[in-house]
Amino acid sequence: MMPEIVLEQARNVVDAGVKKSEELGLCMNIAVVDAGGHLKAFTRMDDAWLGSIDISIKKARTSGLFNVPTGDIGALSQPGGPLYNIEVSNGGLITFPGGLVLTVEKGEVIGAVGVSGSTVENDHDVAAAAAAALA
Amino acid sequence: MMPEIVLEQARNVVDAGVKKSEELGLCMNIAVVDAGGHLKAFTRMDDAWLGSIDISIKKARTSGLFNVPTGDIGALSQPGGPLYNIEVSNGGLITFPGGLVLTVEKGEVIGAVGVSGSTVENDHDVAAAAAAALA
Amino acid sequence: MMPEIVLEQARNVVDAGVKKSEELGLCMNIAVVDAGGHLKAFTRMDDAWLGSIDISIKKARTSGLFNVPTGDIGALSQPGGPLYNIEVSNGGLITFPGGLVLTVEKGEVIGAVGVSGSTVENDHDVAAAAAAALA
Amino acid sequence: MMPEIVLEQARNVVDAGVKKSEELGLCMNIAVVDAGGHLKAFTRMDDAWLGSIDISIKKARTSGLFNVPTGDIGALSQPGGPLYNIEVSNGGLITFPGGLVLTVEKGEVIGAVGVSGSTVENDHDVAAAAAAALA
Repeated sequence: MMPEIVLEQARNVVDAGVKKSEELGLCMNIAVVDAGGHLKAFTRMDDAWLGSIDISIKKARTSGLFNVPTGDIGALSQPGGPLYNIEVSNGGLITFPGGLVLTVEKGEVIGAVGVSGSTVENDHDVAAAAAAALA
Repeated sequence: MMPEIVLEQARNVVDAGVKKSEELGLCMNIAVVDAGGHLKAFTRMDDAWLGSIDISIKKARTSGLFNVPTGDIGALSQPGGPLYNIEVSNGGLITFPGGLVLTVEKGEVIGAVGVSGSTVENDHDVAAAAAAALA
Repeated sequence: MMPEIVLEQARNVVDAGVKKSEELGLCMNIAVVDAGGHLKAFTRMDDAWLGSIDISIKKARTSGLFNVPTGDIGALSQPGGPLYNIEVSNGGLITFPGGLVLTVEKGEVIGAVGVSGSTVENDHDVAAAAAAALA
Repeated sequence: MMPEIVLEQARNVVDAGVKKSEELGLCMNIAVVDAGGHLKAFTRMDDAWLGSIDISIKKARTSGLFNVPTGDIGALSQPGGPLYNIEVSNGGLITFPGGLVLTVEKGEVIGAVGVSGSTVENDHDVAAAAAAALA
């Protein structure tokens, strides 16, 4: 049985991400996918980069399809690394930080969140705050 | 100056669509794009068809890129019609009902909404209720 | 919770499809996807059309993403129909017969099967025999 | 005359890969293509990463289209290398280990196998065990 994220959970994740972004003075795109990588909720904050829409969704999908933070894959996909250019698979993966798995108690994965719109450090921090909304 | 939909407006549109769907006992995918056709907000209600995620987004884009209801294009894209098979353009258009332009007072277009998850009549009705949230 | 098809079930479905194809003297492509539309098992019988590989997978995905037989969508996607040209969505849908939902007791959907390689009547019959393996 | 892999051979390859994966306690995606790079058989073991479905198929295609192990291409596609970024061709190639040519006696190439779901070392080892089923 694959646990399914429900809309209330997805909204809490997005809202927590928006709140954190506002605290940091950032304009983010925030995407939530289910455990199968399908989009569940998406929000583009005002003034967020248009180019980050697709990146936030791909970050969420990338994290959800492999059950790891996007940055973990990026550490392995560099030139000379074991997963070099894995990004061309699955219709396009984004492997730099900003995508995190969403887990509920007992560590069950119910989906993933992807954030894009600032530095990768900020993207990661907002994603972490968003994911923490499920704890 | 292209009028821009702001997040609060997009959320009101989505929320009105969800409310109408719940009243009708339907499980919908609801997408909002800005006047440039770029995704602004998206919500998949619990138990909505996975295949309707993409359709709701494409309905919103189709309406937003041409500034008409999706069904108006579908009337012209039939075999023998003046826009026959226009659906293959723009990375895929959806031209049956469920996509509507979002306007504010004075009739200014600020984006579009796309709804998918039931019959095209229900999709259209939910889209109309969603769009009315801006009036 | 989304019920998940396990490999033994997927193999039983494929094997039942191959057996039925052999009885009918046909060379088929048979694809099984999970409830999220992701490929679980695939088999191309010897001498089956190469062009039917993708069609069988798309039939399975189409049925799985909308929880209906592919032919039900095709009946609605004809010129003048309410879902005209829905096929351009979701990276390409196949809406003629040969894709069927896979259900277990209590009617729970655990995935879908797609068959391609002969007439749509034969494709459907083989898909039905394949799906019956779960009963 | 292009030698053709038959279904019995493809199944033996997949089964040998599944057996080896089980011995190693791994959950793999295993794909077999013919000498033309077209999918012949595919199996996703339970709990295997969804993101590895496409990677296993692309590894098999990559190996089959160039008649070499995927890792041999990866050695040449690094920055400054002679095949830099070849991965964007052919709808997406995967050039890290886990894809191997399938040969029968006399060294005739009849297809290729691609494995994805663990480290590239494990992916390669399972692919080697799978390919050995034809010897």
